[in-house]
Order: sequence, then structure tokens, then C-alpha cells
Amino acid sequence: MSYFEKVNKVEFEGPQSTNNFSFKYYDPEKVVNGKTMRDWLRFSVAYWHTFTADGSDPFGAGTMIRPWGHLTGLDLAKARVEAAFELFEKLDVPYFCFHDVDIAPEGSNLKETYANLDIIVAQIRDYMKTSKTKLLWNTANLFTHPRYVHGAATSNHADVFAYSAARVKKGLEIGKELGAGNYVFWGGREGYDTLLNTDMKLEQENYARFLQMAVDYAKEIGFDGQLLIEPKPKEPTKHQYDFNVATSLSFLQKYDLAPHFKFNVEANHATLAGHSFQHELRVARINGMLGSVDANQGDQLIGWDTDEFPTDLYSTTLAMYEILKNGGLGKGGLNFDAKVRRGSFDPNDLFLAHIAGMDSFAVGLLVASQLIQDRVFDDFIVNRYKSYTEGIGLDIVEGRADFHTLESHALTLSQIPNESGREEHLKSILNQYLLKTLTEV
Amino acid sequence: MSYFEKVNKVEFEGPQSTNNFSFKYYDPEKVVNGKTMRDWLRFSVAYWHTFTADGSDPFGAGTMIRPWGHLTGLDLAKARVEAAFELFEKLDVPYFCFHDVDIAPEGSNLKETYANLDIIVAQIRDYMKTSKTKLLWNTANLFTHPRYVHGAATSNHADVFAYSAARVKKGLEIGKELGAGNYVFWGGREGYDTLLNTDMKLEQENYARFLQMAVDYAKEIGFDGQLLIEPKPKEPTKHQYDFNVATSLSFLQKYDLAPHFKFNVEANHATLAGHSFQHELRVARINGMLGSVDANQGDQLIGWDTDEFPTDLYSTTLAMYEILKNGGLGKGGLNFDAKVRRGSFDPNDLFLAHIAGMDSFAVGLLVASQLIQDRVFDDFIVNRYKSYTEGIGLDIVEGRADFHTLESHALTLSQIPNESGREEHLKSILNQYLLKTLTEV
Amino acid sequence: MSYFEKVNKVEFEGPQSTNNFSFKYYDPEKVVNGKTMRDWLRFSVAYWHTFTADGSDPFGAGTMIRPWGHLTGLDLAKARVEAAFELFEKLDVPYFCFHDVDIAPEGSNLKETYANLDIIVAQIRDYMKTSKTKLLWNTANLFTHPRYVHGAATSNHADVFAYSAARVKKGLEIGKELGAGNYVFWGGREGYDTLLNTDMKLEQENYARFLQMAVDYAKEIGFDGQLLIEPKPKEPTKHQYDFNVATSLSFLQKYDLAPHFKFNVEANHATLAGHSFQHELRVARINGMLGSVDANQGDQLIGWDTDEFPTDLYSTTLAMYEILKNGGLGKGGLNFDAKVRRGSFDPNDLFLAHIAGMDSFAVGLLVASQLIQDRVFDDFIVNRYKSYTEGIGLDIVEGRADFHTLESHALTLSQIPNESGREEHLKSILNQYLLKTLTEV
Amino acid sequence: MSYFEKVNKVEFEGPQSTNNFSFKYYDPEKVVNGKTMRDWLRFSVAYWHTFTADGSDPFGAGTMIRPWGHLTGLDLAKARVEAAFELFEKLDVPYFCFHDVDIAPEGSNLKETYANLDIIVAQIRDYMKTSKTKLLWNTANLFTHPRYVHGAATSNHADVFAYSAARVKKGLEIGKELGAGNYVFWGGREGYDTLLNTDMKLEQENYARFLQMAVDYAKEIGFDGQLLIEPKPKEPTKHQYDFNVATSLSFLQKYDLAPHFKFNVEANHATLAGHSFQHELRVARINGMLGSVDANQGDQLIGWDTDEFPTDLYSTTLAMYEILKNGGLGKGGLNFDAKVRRGSFDPNDLFLAHIAGMDSFAVGLLVASQLIQDRVFDDFIVNRYKSYTEGIGLDIVEGRADFHTLESHALTLSQIPNESGREEHLKSILNQYLLKTLTEV
Repeated sequence: MSYFEKVNKVEFEGPQSTNNFSFKYYDPEKVVNGKTMRDWLRFSVAYWHTFTADGSDPFGAGTMIRPWGHLTGLDLAKARVEAAFELFEKLDVPYFCFHDVDIAPEGSNLKETYANLDIIVAQIRDYMKTSKTKLLWNTANLFTHPRYVHGAATSNHADVFAYSAARVKKGLEIGKELGAGNYVFWGGREGYDTLLNTDMKLEQENYARFLQMAVDYAKEIGFDGQLLIEPKPKEPTKHQYDFNVATSLSFLQKYDLAPHFKFNVEANHATLAGHSFQHELRVARINGMLGSVDANQGDQLIGWDTDEFPTDLYSTTLAMYEILKNGGLGKGGLNFDAKVRRGSFDPNDLFLAHIAGMDSFAVGLLVASQLIQDRVFDDFIVNRYKSYTEGIGLDIVEGRADFHTLESHALTLSQIPNESGREEHLKSILNQYLLKTLTEV
Repeated sequence: MSYFEKVNKVEFEGPQSTNNFSFKYYDPEKVVNGKTMRDWLRFSVAYWHTFTADGSDPFGAGTMIRPWGHLTGLDLAKARVEAAFELFEKLDVPYFCFHDVDIAPEGSNLKETYANLDIIVAQIRDYMKTSKTKLLWNTANLFTHPRYVHGAATSNHADVFAYSAARVKKGLEIGKELGAGNYVFWGGREGYDTLLNTDMKLEQENYARFLQMAVDYAKEIGFDGQLLIEPKPKEPTKHQYDFNVATSLSFLQKYDLAPHFKFNVEANHATLAGHSFQHELRVARINGMLGSVDANQGDQLIGWDTDEFPTDLYSTTLAMYEILKNGGLGKGGLNFDAKVRRGSFDPNDLFLAHIAGMDSFAVGLLVASQLIQDRVFDDFIVNRYKSYTEGIGLDIVEGRADFHTLESHALTLSQIPNESGREEHLKSILNQYLLKTLTEV
Repeated sequence: MSYFEKVNKVEFEGPQSTNNFSFKYYDPEKVVNGKTMRDWLRFSVAYWHTFTADGSDPFGAGTMIRPWGHLTGLDLAKARVEAAFELFEKLDVPYFCFHDVDIAPEGSNLKETYANLDIIVAQIRDYMKTSKTKLLWNTANLFTHPRYVHGAATSNHADVFAYSAARVKKGLEIGKELGAGNYVFWGGREGYDTLLNTDMKLEQENYARFLQMAVDYAKEIGFDGQLLIEPKPKEPTKHQYDFNVATSLSFLQKYDLAPHFKFNVEANHATLAGHSFQHELRVARINGMLGSVDANQGDQLIGWDTDEFPTDLYSTTLAMYEILKNGGLGKGGLNFDAKVRRGSFDPNDLFLAHIAGMDSFAVGLLVASQLIQDRVFDDFIVNRYKSYTEGIGLDIVEGRADFHTLESHALTLSQIPNESGREEHLKSILNQYLLKTLTEV
Repeated sequence: MSYFEKVNKVEFEGPQSTNNFSFKYYDPEKVVNGKTMRDWLRFSVAYWHTFTADGSDPFGAGTMIRPWGHLTGLDLAKARVEAAFELFEKLDVPYFCFHDVDIAPEGSNLKETYANLDIIVAQIRDYMKTSKTKLLWNTANLFTHPRYVHGAATSNHADVFAYSAARVKKGLEIGKELGAGNYVFWGGREGYDTLLNTDMKLEQENYARFLQMAVDYAKEIGFDGQLLIEPKPKEPTKHQYDFNVATSLSFLQKYDLAPHFKFNVEANHATLAGHSFQHELRVARINGMLGSVDANQGDQLIGWDTDEFPTDLYSTTLAMYEILKNGGLGKGGLNFDAKVRRGSFDPNDLFLAHIAGMDSFAVGLLVASQLIQDRVFDDFIVNRYKSYTEGIGLDIVEGRADFHTLESHALTLSQIPNESGREEHLKSILNQYLLKTLTEV
């Protein structure tokens, strides 16, 4: 059967097409900088937002009209899988991601939950035999159920820790079974609501123990995907321990976990932490920790996680700039951790929104690639820091300077001739590349 | 001569006094939890806000009426020292802090600047022979002068790096000469305004080199004060590398600098980073990195650094809670990095504002001490996490658990009996302690 | 039957009591400034948060343990009424508030919904015959159901407008039947998510038409309660038309609706709009529009509506300051639009949280009353503006000045002797009153 | 003499030019939608940021290198005028704006200040005889000098009110003399820092009296420019009375001033108030109050007024969309209330930054014009609200409906068939227009 029968297969028709259901800029076969768009962008559909969510918000009930909306239990779970692979095919999207509870209902106890998962995982595995779509990553949802009210790995209750471990264990097994490229840890309840009742030190130590056990178990079963931490500063808790990339890095370093993890960087989580998306990608990149990306956007005038489909071309261009500089995302990808707005409730919006996101990142790839090819910012930066390639600057960089030699040098200086940083002009050039790249390439 | 002749010595007169120039709660000799208030609180006056600043803001000229306001150059510098020690004595404040440019004017070159500093440092040293007030910390201002427009240790220009090194070298020498307990690094320009022109990796490596040289030089000259990093997320730059405690810790760990540094935690910098003051103190404390405190407060409805004198008793109580749990601040102290409002421009406001801050922290000390003595939160927390002291919880903490044993345990669980976190009630009890402690003690 | 059988009637036991289930500061019979605490504070329980909500959040399922949690439909609705009046009595709280959907389930069409409402309204009316608790206000929930996805009175669909009108009509009838003191309009969906699809002008005109019809109908049926607008800047929509008090006032003035409405000011909505709670109360008060108060608090480090029980004594004191200056709230009251935290899930927390809030406002009343009685801020302010009581200042205020006479005066001035605003000192005095009032009164 | 001798006249060279000193998109003679770009955009240079400011910030001294930087007093003032008209000519910019203190130094008393102004106004008038550049607006700076520390028209000191009136009187006279199209009121100190010492009601009444006197005096002298209020929520004060457009409108309405004023809407002030730039323009437009625009941008991750040159093409496009819908700006214009970054300190940056801004608004004009010509959003919106053009919807709009008729209608409804708002798709189309318009037109 078809869940999206009115939606025709989406073909690339070029920028002037008037068919709103087609891609304007994303052409999976187009070669950019030595690889196809498909290979650079590695798009992924987020199962939860697209197949499980209903459009409810803190002040409103669900609005989403879904062809499978009348079903329940395992019937609902199975229908979602069918719908998912239909959408994957129509969008020609190469990856998807899920939490365990997105794909199968919880049972009345762990054993039943396992059984439900096994049924749906088998169904997914069957679909994957003939589908071109692969599993980018999976994870265990350790935040929705009331048992996680005070945390999962950082819960004050050891049974919750144990239960969470069992779910991650199962998640790693599923990941291995389905050939996932990555396994993600987002600690939605790993934080605190008030310090008045919180032993932060014990909670963080336990979190480290938990992650180490996950590393050990992944090795034990031969799961060869990349383990990823997904930082977020707050929401649902007042403060989450994986606040941002740098904070999470300090934690991984402290507990000798850094060699085993990379980061899954999300745009909206970056801005909630007070950073630009590019900033978080840059911090991850220069620390060798850029693993994957949750490709969405937030609303900077709004203080909560809006998880919008990415349409801001500045954001997608500068994100792709960092990703290209990183040599791509390796096993990672661009996962649309994005939900159609509550008011975009019909099935067509699922297609329109994904196309909006995919086109926006395709434009970002093209523009960023041209910026790098023309060395627009690279040349400016090389010249700007050239004083470190000779004389006292080279001494500093190569470790030959100390406070004595530097003071001697400083005593010889009169005025130091700084040069303009040209911020306005660089932004203007970025605009020019945005506007001209599509006509040039 | 006297700069504050109309201000009488400030004595402790108790809560019912109607003399507004007296302390209501701060009694330096009062013993709390085994030490005097003076020893717990270790108050410090910030030279820049109190003696150098003029009340200007981005939209307005200076407003401050100061008895030394008509002077210039070294005469002005000397008068400020005289006024400072008069205020220190009248307030009976045990410490002060300064940046190099606060105490002496810059010369036309580094040599002249050194000479100016030497004159004023000698004057200060003379005053300190008879004063009870000591130097909590000093630092070099590496942010005001145009040469630092693109950073100091992270400047793109190696000459600026060298020049900055010379200023820190001199600063460490001054610190040693005046017996400073600490030396502070606040990187006001160590960050970026736009990533488009920034080599973040090189800048951070250079910053690490700079700090290592400072560590080496401090050792070389036998400066035995504590070296402190002061985190701040933004302002004046769009993004500052020492964003918050955790970010700075990740940097120090990466470059093996953590053993040589602690943090100077500022309340207003915490809130600008999206954290409570207590949060930043807690993070520093449980990592063994709580060195000193910039005791001020921000306005959470305002997005810039307001540096207000601390009067919020919740903030002072919870700060003192962390400080007491830390066993005090060691060589550190509570430095009033706070400025009287632009509209509080007469000299009396300097006294009134310091008294407001000192009284507020005195109340905080008394309330926090009582909370700890009565084990109000401790008992609640111990009980809350008790599952980690036995059975599977103890196995987890003591390293005997793995995903296999945890899963086996989880499979035996039906519903996990979480208990309420009682946030509202704990806040209510905090209120009761705030309101009753002063009548009890 | 009893839903809270383990909770005894909550009595006032005074500040030193160790019984955590008693009031420490709220003593309903205590006379303050000529009226009892009960009469000044006019506390109200919010039905939705206390009896209907389940503790779910955007990332988590409900956690609340409620004795009526196993019921459904009208049985559930009836049980909630029983529980509500038990809690009202035990807390001795004089008012409650509800939305229509809080008390009765929606039917499959409007007629059935009316029928459900009639059943529960009859039950409530019966309880009210013997209860001391009255209805502060009721309202129609025009935001939860999917039909309101694009607004209610500002929906793009006229049927939704009509349907919403029917619900408000019924709401006014219910309000009249139960003797409500007020009827509230909170336009949770009256705003926009994107301007790209929004006719803001038509939507606002329709909103004005809707409110005028409500005014007309209230008059027609003789509903003599006060009509209240509740401002909120955002959430659930990106932008809500009733952004803050001043914005809502501009709307009411434009459409000649101001004489018919006052404001229901909520603390958390104030801070989301970038204002202090006191600011919004002040703006409402000096415009003669302060009607009622939603007594909660937000977390200023968090960008969404946290609806916490109010425990910040600064906030409650300054709120009561404005309310006392307003001569009280008239028909309005202090409604606890506040929810126990998701982690405070057991029934006892409902009592502990209300006690926390009631005690906090009781302290606020006592402190504010003393501040006003001692004319602490009044005398300062009268003196500060005294220049407008004589000479050129009096000319200005009495309308005798123009730019000619003012220029003539200005040309005679040399330096204008401003005086310090004493902000730090005033905050310090506020602290002293907070700390000393309870021992004095 | 020439202050910018190395800067060649800036000619339009089209998008592919490699000369960074030329316009890429702004072509003043190009006709768009019936008018030239020059006439639609009405660009204006802000005298203060471009000729007076020095690049200082709260943590740093000035950095700007200016050919007139060595001068002082009236010599400096005269040199700035010369430089200004050279820049106006090279950029071919049709308007400029100034505050009184930008163009001439304050004297030791009001009479001397007037004299200084007269000298420079005469010089400007002479330049304007041969220049094509006109005065968009002028204003009096009532915020920098210490006398305004507690406000100007809202000062607690009547002498300050009188003095401020004299300055505005002079400002209106200068505006008349130089043929200004508008006179602007930005109340940088008209607000409060703490409510504890503030009589908000008196201050607002005085503000209204002040504005009425200005209206009267403008009429008296025959100043026929438009009077403009410029809203801003905060900075420099904690709260400014002209918080945003809606708040200012409520004030103007209350005091019957609305017919005499329009708004000068600034992008960065919009975002500081929690609104998009488009939102504030829309609110002003649909209330018939859109007068002029301060064309800059803020950084939404930063909480203070960054006054950046506008380069965000989404912002410029949606701003021009509202301006086109308004039929243009009438006597108003697009004033670059924008400063080059502190790190963009050489004179060339002044040109590069203005070109960046002018090109960005030229792109915005082209894209917005095409969106309107193609009725992209208009058709969507007309269709979306079509239910108000017939049946019950038309009854509502034409005043024939009441709660009785609406309820009768509602009782006939089963499910209301809402349609998707298509937010993602509309954003995607906006991107397509941004990317394709320049190649099409």
C-alpha cells in the first residue's frame, strides 16, 4: 500500500521549475569538489519527527494528519516502517535515524519492550535489504518515560541507571544488526533542575562510568560505528551536563573518554547555548571531534528548542564550510532533527519541508565549495596571521620564546601596526558568493 | 589629606541601626563556623571600578564626582592611591585588586610605562607597610589599548603577543613585590568577533603557549600566588575563548595546564553564559578548581555586563554555600568587581555600595553556615542517592558492574519507585532559613 | 471519600515551627494595614495545573501520581471536583480558577461539550454552596484543540472564530452562574508563527470585534465580573498579539475597548517579555488597569514559560508593593498559575508548593506594608522630584511652560545640580526590611 | 583638501566586478517598480558613527584611524563636515542625519553651544548649496552629557527638562534651516534604572508634555518635517519608555499625540525588544505610523546594541517588503545607524561598510519587488483568509454577527477543515526568489 500516493517521485528539475514538489538545487548525482552531492551531504530523515510526532506542544494537542494515525500498538509501529521506506524512496534520502521508542512501543516490562523492538527491527532489516537507505545512527530514548524523571545514567536511583544500561545495550545490538554508522548519546535528562537536591559530582562520575561501559560493550560485540555525544545546554532540564561542545569535551577529557567519542552537533542546540552553529562545528572540528550533524535551525528570538527545518542559507553555507574543511563527515551525516511546524500538518508538508532543508544544504555546499576553491577567506586569514611565520612570531610558535625574549622584543617596539579585520567587507563577499555561485556553477 | 572627610569610620552597629553608613550584618570579628567573618569573606575592593572608572557608558560621558577628579597623569595616580587606602581603612576591608593601568598611566612606550608603574608600586608598598589591607590579586590590562584590538595572546600579530607577554611579566613581578595572593588572567580580547577572519586553532595554541610561559616565569621568580583564569562568555568580543568554567577547563586540560591554574568565578559572567552563579562555583569546586570570586551581580533581563554590587541574598547565600563546602577560598577572596551605577555618582555611594555588598555576603555566610550546620540539604541529598550505597548501586560506583550485570538486574525490575525531588519545598526551606537565621544566631 | 487523606488541615504555626506541612507566615486572620491577610492576598488555586495537568513536557510523558489518575471521562472530571474542594478546604484557600476544558471533557461536538460542562458546573455549584471557596475567574481554553492551530478569534478560518465565540459565550454564562469575579482572555494562539502567511491587520481587527461582542454579551446577560486580558509575549506562538501590558493597552485603546477591560498580569509572562514582574504591575497600575495577578515565577536563565510556584521574596515583596499602592486587587486575586515541577510528582507536593507560594506572598505583604508605612521609598521619591513642585517645574506640570519660557530658563543655568539616585543603598534598605520585618511585626 | 584621496569614486560595476570598492547591486538610476533605486531606498549616512565615533567600547579605547583625528574643537568639527561631504559625494548617498553634538562641540553654557552650532550649521548649509545630499533628519542628543544622568524630558530635575526643551527648540530651528525631512526623538535616558526611586507616572506625563510642546513649536516656526519617535527597549537605561512600536503607540494614544508622530524603526532595537525587524515595520505600517528606518542589524546572540551595517539579505528583503507595501517611506529614508566594527578601523572600511549595506538593501529591494509583483505571499494570504469574504465570515467582518448568531453557526459545525500554513514551503520559496531574482531581472 502507499501512504503518500498523491506525492509523485521527486525528481531534480533545476532552479526554474514551477513544480513545488521537486528539488531546485539538490541533485544527488551532481559532482562538487570531487564527490557527489549525495556523498557530501549524507542526508538523513529523523524517524521521530517525521513518523512518530503528532504536532503537540506544551499548550496544544497533536495536529498532524497522518495516514497511519488511526492505528495503535504494533500495527501502528509497522505502518510507520512502511510509510518511512516509502518516503525514503520518494525523497531518495540515503540515511535515517531513530530512538528505540520511535520504532516500537514500550512493553509492560523490559522483556516485552525487547520483544517489540525485535519485531520491528526485523521488519526494518527486511526493508533495508532492497532499499538504498541506510541507518545513520540509532539511540535509546532515555528521557520520555517517567522512570527517567531524575535522570538516566545520572539518576539518583541505581535501578534507573541499570535499566538505562540495558536499553543502551540493546541499542548497540540493534545498531550492529542494522549496520548503523554511529550510535548517539543525547542526555535529555542528564542534568539537574535545582542544585539544592543534586550531587553533581556523583552524577557526573556515574555518567562517565556509564559511557565507559558502553565503550566496553560496543567493543565486545564488535559494533564498529562511531559513538557520538550530542551537546545541548538546557531543555528539558534546567541545566544539562553536555551543555555545549567545549563543556562535553572537558568531561570526556577528565574521564579519559575523549578517544572513544566524537560529537553530534545540532544547530538549534548551538544557539540555545549562545553560540552560532558554525562556532560549535568549528570547536568540534579543530579538536578532531566533529562526528555528525543534526541539521535544523532554531529561532534566535525564542528560548526553546524549535527544531525547524533548516532554510537559512547563511547557516547552511557556513556549516558546509566547516564540514568541507573537515574533509566531510566520515561516518556521520546531516540528520534532519527537524519537525514540520504544528501548523504544517498535512502529509505534503513532510515532503516540502525535507525538500526545503535538502535544497538549503545543497546551496550551502555549492557556495561553501566555491568559497574554499577561490580561497576567499583562506588567503585573507593566511595573510592576517603571517607575523607568526617569521621572526619573533615563528619563535613563539616553535617554542623558542619565553617572557625574557618577548620582553626584549617588546621594548624595541613603538606603535604596533595592526591591520583592519574587514568584517563588513568579508560579509559582503559572502553575500556575493551566495548570490552568484548558482549562476556560475 | 582626606578624600572622604565626611565619611566616618564604618562601625558595626547591628541590624536596627538607623545610621545608614554603618554595617548592619558584617561584623569582621564575629566568629562563624570556627573562623571570623573577615577570614571567611576576605573582601576585596576593585581598584578600577572604585578609583579609576568615571561612570561613562556606551551612550554617555562620565558622571562620577571624585575628589581627585581634577588631577591628571601621575598626580592623579598618586591621589588615587591615597584615596584608596583611606577607603580601605574606613571600610576595614582586608584586600584590594588592580590592573596595571588602573594604578599608573601608560607611557609613550613600554619603558616609560614600566617607570610609571614602578613609581606607583613603590607608593603602594609604602602604604601597605602600615595598612592592614593586602593585595588579593593584580593583573595586566590586555584589552583597553587599541593594540589589543584583535586580541593579546591571541592576536594575529606576533608583536602584540610579545608586548602582552612583557606586561604579564611585569605584572607577575609586581605581584611578587606586593605579596599578591593570586594573579588573574581575564582575556577580554582573547576571542573573536567573526569566524570569517579567525584561525581559532592557532589562536588557542598561542594562548596555551602564553599561559605556559607565564607558569614558567612565575616559577622562575618564585611568585607563589595562585594563577587564576577568569571565564566570561562574551563582551567585549562576540565570543571569548574562556566562555565559562567548563570550557576553560577543557582548554587547560588539553594543553596540560590544569595543574597550574584555578578559576576566578564572577557572578555576572556566570549569568551571561546562561548559568547561575552557584552553578559556576559548583563546577569549579567539584573539579578542585575554585580559586577566587568576583563578587558582583548582573541583571538577568539585560544582556550585557552590568557589574552591580551584590545585593541579592539568594545569590550571596548560595555562593557562600559553595565556598563553605570548599573549605573557604584559600588564597582567594571575594573581590567586588562591581561599579556604582552611573546615577550613583557621589563619593558616599562608594561606601554605601560596598556596605551593601559586604552586608549581603555576611548574611549569605550566616544563612549558608546554618544550612550546612543543620545539614538541611545534605541529609536530603544523602538520602536521595542512597541507592548507590548498596546492591547494584554500590556495584556501579565501585566498578563491579557492566552492561551484562546491569541488564540482568533491569530484567528483574517492574516499576522503579522514584521519589519526589521536592524542589518547591526545598526552596521554601531556604526562605525560612533566610528569614530566621538572623534572629537565631 | 478523601483524595488527600494523609494530609491534615494546614494550620498556621508560626515561623519557628518544624512541621513542614504548616504555614510559617501566612495567617489568614492576621490583620495587616487594616485588612486580613486573606483579604489582601485573595489566593486562588489554578485548576489546570493542580488537578488536570500530568507533568508531561515536550520531551517527557506525565509523571504525576494522582489518586484520581485511573479514571476517565466524566468520572475523572467528577473526581477532580471532589479532590479540588478537599484541597481548597485543607489549604483554606478562598478562590479557584479554571478553563472550561479543565473541568469537563470535550464532547464530539459543541452540544455534547456543553452538556458535559453543565454536569460539572452543577457539581461545582453544589460544592460551592457549602464551601468558603469562590470562583476568582473562569475562561475558555481556545488554544489546546487542533481547531485553534491558526488562532481562535484571530484564526484565518471564520468557522473557528464562530466556534470560539460560542465557547466564550458559554464561559460567560458559566461565570455568571458560579458568581465569578472575573473572566479572563488569554490568547494563546492569537498571534502568528510566521509573517509570511499572516494578515496581521485583519487578525487584529477580528480580535477587536470578538472582544467587543464579548463585552456586549456580558452586558446582555448581566455578568458583572471584570473582563481581563492576560498578556504574554510568545509561546505557544512565535509572537502573541497581547505581548505585554503596554502593547495590549495600545490595542485596547485603538479599538475603544480600554474602558471595558483590565489586565491579568503574570510574573512569568512579564519576564518572558523582558520586564520585571513589578514593571508590568506598575504599568498596569498607573494606567488604572491592574485587575488581577497570575502569581508564579519564571527562571530568567530559561526562555520558556516555567510557571514555577512563587518563592522569590524580592518578587513577592515588590509585587505586593504595587498591589498595596493599588489599594488591593478589587475583584481580582493572586492566582497560582503555577505547576509543581515534573520531579515533584506526589500529592504532598501540591500542598507543599501551595504553602511555599502562600508563605512567600505573605512575607511579601508584610514587608511591603512596612515599607509603605515607613514611607521608605515614598519619601525618597517625593524629595527626588521636588523640583516639579515649584518654579519652572511647577510651570511645566501645570501647563504654563512652552519652549520659549523653558529656553529662557535654560539660558540662565550654569551647571545643573543632579543628586545621586542611590540605587545600591535603596536595594540595601530593601534587604534590611526583608530581614527585619518578621521579627518586628 | 581630500580626506579620502585614495578612495576613487564608486561606480556601479555589476555583480561580477572584482573591484571591491564598487557597488555590486546598488545602481541608483536603475528603475524598479516605477521608481529609481535611489528614490526607493533614500539612503542616509549617520554622522555620529561615521564621522564622530572613535571605536571605543566599554572595555576599550578608540581604535579608529581618521584623517581628522589630530584636530580638536571647532577645527575638528569643520574638518568633519568637509570629510562628510566628500564621502557623501563619493558614495553618491542622497541623505545624512546628525545629532547636535555630532556636528559641533558643546560650549561651557547653552549660549556658547548655540554659537558653536550656528557656525557649523552655516558651514553645512554652504556645502548643501552645491551638494546633492540632503538632510534626512536631525535631532538633539539628550543622553550623553552627565546632566541627563536621570533622564531629559523624564528627568527628576525640572532644570534638565527645561534645558532639554531648549536643545530640541534649537534642533527644530536647525532642521527648518537645513530643510530636514524629519526630526527624531530617541529617548536614550527616558526610562529608569530602578523602580525603587522612580515616579513612572509623573515621568511619562512630563514626557507627553514635552512632546506636545515640540509639536506646538514645530507648528509655530513652520517646520514641516515629520516628527518621529524611535523605540528602543533598553540600553543605556535598564528600561526605556519607548520600548517598542506598540508600547510607544500606547503612550502616544493615551496623550493624544498619535496624529503628530510616526516611528523611526531600527532593526537592532527590534531584536533587542524580542521582535524581528519585519515585525516592528509591520506593526508601524498597519497602524499608519511607519515614518523612517534605521537600517542596521544586531547580533541575536548578543544582548546589547551592536549597530552593525546591514548585510543579512533576509532582513533587508523582508524590510523592503514592508516598505514597498507601505508605498515607500515618504519623507523618511534608510539611515545607516551602523558603525564599522572596532576592528575595522581604517578609512577604507567606512566605504566598504556603506557599500555592504547599500548593496544589501538593493538586493532586498529587487527580491521584495519581485515577490510582490508575482504576488507570491499575497495570493497565498488572500486564499488563506477567504472564509471572511463570504457567509459567516463576511458577517463577522461587516459587523452583522454577535455571540448568538455565532453560537448558532458553531452548533452546526462538525470538524473544522483547517489547511496547512505551509511555513517551510514559504521559506523555501523565499530562498528561491533570493537566489534567482538577480539573474532574472
